[in-house]
Amino acid sequence: MKRQNVRTLSLIACTFTYLLVGAAVFDALESDHEMREEEKLKAEEIRIRGKYNISTEDYRQLELVILQSEPHRAGVQWKFAGSFYFAITVITTIGYGHAAPGTDAGKAFCMFYAVLGIPLTLVMFQSLGERMNTFVRYLLKRIKKCCGMRNTEVSMENMVTVGFFSCMGTLCIGAAAFSQCEEWSFFHAYYYCFITLTTIGFGDYVALQTKGALQRKPFYVAFSFMYILVGLTVIGAFLNLVVLRFLTMNSDEEHRDGMDRNALPGIPGIPGIPGIARNMVVQVPAAPDASVEVSTRPTAPAPAGLLAAPTTGWPCLPCIEEISPSTLKNSLLPSPFGSVSPGMPGLSDNLGLTRRRKSV
Amino acid sequence: MKRQNVRTLSLIACTFTYLLVGAAVFDALESDHEMREEEKLKAEEIRIRGKYNISTEDYRQLELVILQSEPHRAGVQWKFAGSFYFAITVITTIGYGHAAPGTDAGKAFCMFYAVLGIPLTLVMFQSLGERMNTFVRYLLKRIKKCCGMRNTEVSMENMVTVGFFSCMGTLCIGAAAFSQCEEWSFFHAYYYCFITLTTIGFGDYVALQTKGALQRKPFYVAFSFMYILVGLTVIGAFLNLVVLRFLTMNSDEEHRDGMDRNALPGIPGIPGIPGIARNMVVQVPAAPDASVEVSTRPTAPAPAGLLAAPTTGWPCLPCIEEISPSTLKNSLLPSPFGSVSPGMPGLSDNLGLTRRRKSV
Repeated sequence: MKRQNVRTLSLIACTFTYLLVGAAVFDALESDHEMREEEKLKAEEIRIRGKYNISTEDYRQLELVILQSEPHRAGVQWKFAGSFYFAITVITTIGYGHAAPGTDAGKAFCMFYAVLGIPLTLVMFQSLGERMNTFVRYLLKRIKKCCGMRNTEVSMENMVTVGFFSCMGTLCIGAAAFSQCEEWSFFHAYYYCFITLTTIGFGDYVALQTKGALQRKPFYVAFSFMYILVGLTVIGAFLNLVVLRFLTMNSDEEHRDGMDRNALPGIPGIPGIPGIARNMVVQVPAAPDASVEVSTRPTAPAPAGLLAAPTTGWPCLPCIEEISPSTLKNSLLPSPFGSVSPGMPGLSDNLGLTRRRKSV
Repeated sequence: MKRQNVRTLSLIACTFTYLLVGAAVFDALESDHEMREEEKLKAEEIRIRGKYNISTEDYRQLELVILQSEPHRAGVQWKFAGSFYFAITVITTIGYGHAAPGTDAGKAFCMFYAVLGIPLTLVMFQSLGERMNTFVRYLLKRIKKCCGMRNTEVSMENMVTVGFFSCMGTLCIGAAAFSQCEEWSFFHAYYYCFITLTTIGFGDYVALQTKGALQRKPFYVAFSFMYILVGLTVIGAFLNLVVLRFLTMNSDEEHRDGMDRNALPGIPGIPGIPGIARNMVVQVPAAPDASVEVSTRPTAPAPAGLLAAPTTGWPCLPCIEEISPSTLKNSLLPSPFGSVSPGMPGLSDNLGLTRRRKSV
């Protein structure tokens, strides 16, 4: 079975198992509390209804009024500041739902707005995140130089460590700020920041929803907006570092397998340096539709003095790349097309130049 | 200024402009409706409170009771089916908030659960989406063959068209189904499906929240879960096709620029084929930290008979790759490092083998 399919099926199995385990744990943690809460609320409802002898119909009406009044109690939601807040929650997919469009025109525009806004925001945060990583990498290099370290290379581990602590720092700063401004406990404010910056956005805790903050506290409003956008950039940078490569894994392999399928048979092995010949792929411009590719496996050991290799004939262009864990893993797997090109080895070795390097 | 920085700054400017425009439109569309609604609700509240002469304190208490009772009215939320539903909304980041953990243990586990679950789900949907695209590409190729078309190549346009109609189809099927099961209008059901599959998840419309559906309608529950997961796969496939390449654009360029910076000076031009030499990059294994790379620009015109190029010495491995629109765009931009390598031309041309191909 093709390894991309095996990987995908394994991922599906993992996700479903993860969902089942999660469901069991949430059930165990929340079910009893839910029952107790329901009883308490029912008792309180009966007490008040009894005290005022509210008819069932009026009570249903009262329920509607109170539920629909919730966003209004938090202040005006749709003046510019509130609409800006809402727009942020749409294109970032946080979607608290503290305010949702009430008109059909608003709903229709919201869908149109998201169609363009979400990809734009996704690309913007990833792009900004990558820039942040590049800057951090540069800083770490400089710091290592200043400390007189012999090896000033910035490893993936360095970057992931910095990324992890940046995320934790961002969450803690947010938790400290919002616990002050919203009168939440630190833990609840941390939970709010986490649920916001992961774009889950339950809406059980939403900033700027008390004391008409959206109208009365411009600096707090500005801080909250900036916190969300900067926080998402930090998370985006971490995802760019850790997760992004895995998103393109199948596509990259598919593309390499495509190269395998297009391979030309019958090119004899040539003497050369294993590392070079194994990774050598050369391109020539040609008719758009044409697609030709040949690989050769070295038959002779590497000559000494690589950098002094002849510069007449075909050039020696040595280069070493850092290989990402995923690439390493994949390169250990046999190519499913290892035998489709008679007279030549599979190109599963021949991936060097199409590998995506890790971004450190 | 480095082109990755220019691109990132442009993206930030676009996003902020997009937010400002969105805020203005939402303000224009929703503000008046909000005011009218607030007046109506206030009037109704006064009517009922007056009718029963409910004290302010009791009314505040009643508000709390009714707001906290909302999830309970929808049925039991945290038995297995409900917890599974909740787990889906966490790892997909939909986060309706129709039910949110009430205990601190539940909140803590929810954060832990999301940290692992979101990346897993992200990779799973992208991987599954890519598999779907590969299968659709294969199907289209077969269909074109069956129709006896001369050019059976599946273009990016073909794939995007199929992807677009798949997304629309998924939304319409969902809208039809949920409008039946939830007694929503088709438009509102479509809005629900859109807000769910974009993972915004406001929670203003949430399936399985009426008539204790989570407990009483197992088939409808199963359909709803499958719809969300399959729908997210279809959207994931479309994003994989259209957006994913843009997410890695900066990283890819950074990596190529890194190659430029590492370039070794002083390798004389060699006779060869422009297309080949311009795209030639060869790798050799070496000490992990070392990083050396050389490129040469051809000084002589291409000899005839490319495929008959000498197979002794360095191999000729011709290959033509499809270049993605983004790559084409980038390749038109001058390399910011065009002049950093004395004695040799910039390597901005020398990108062929590190380009990411479009996935069709």
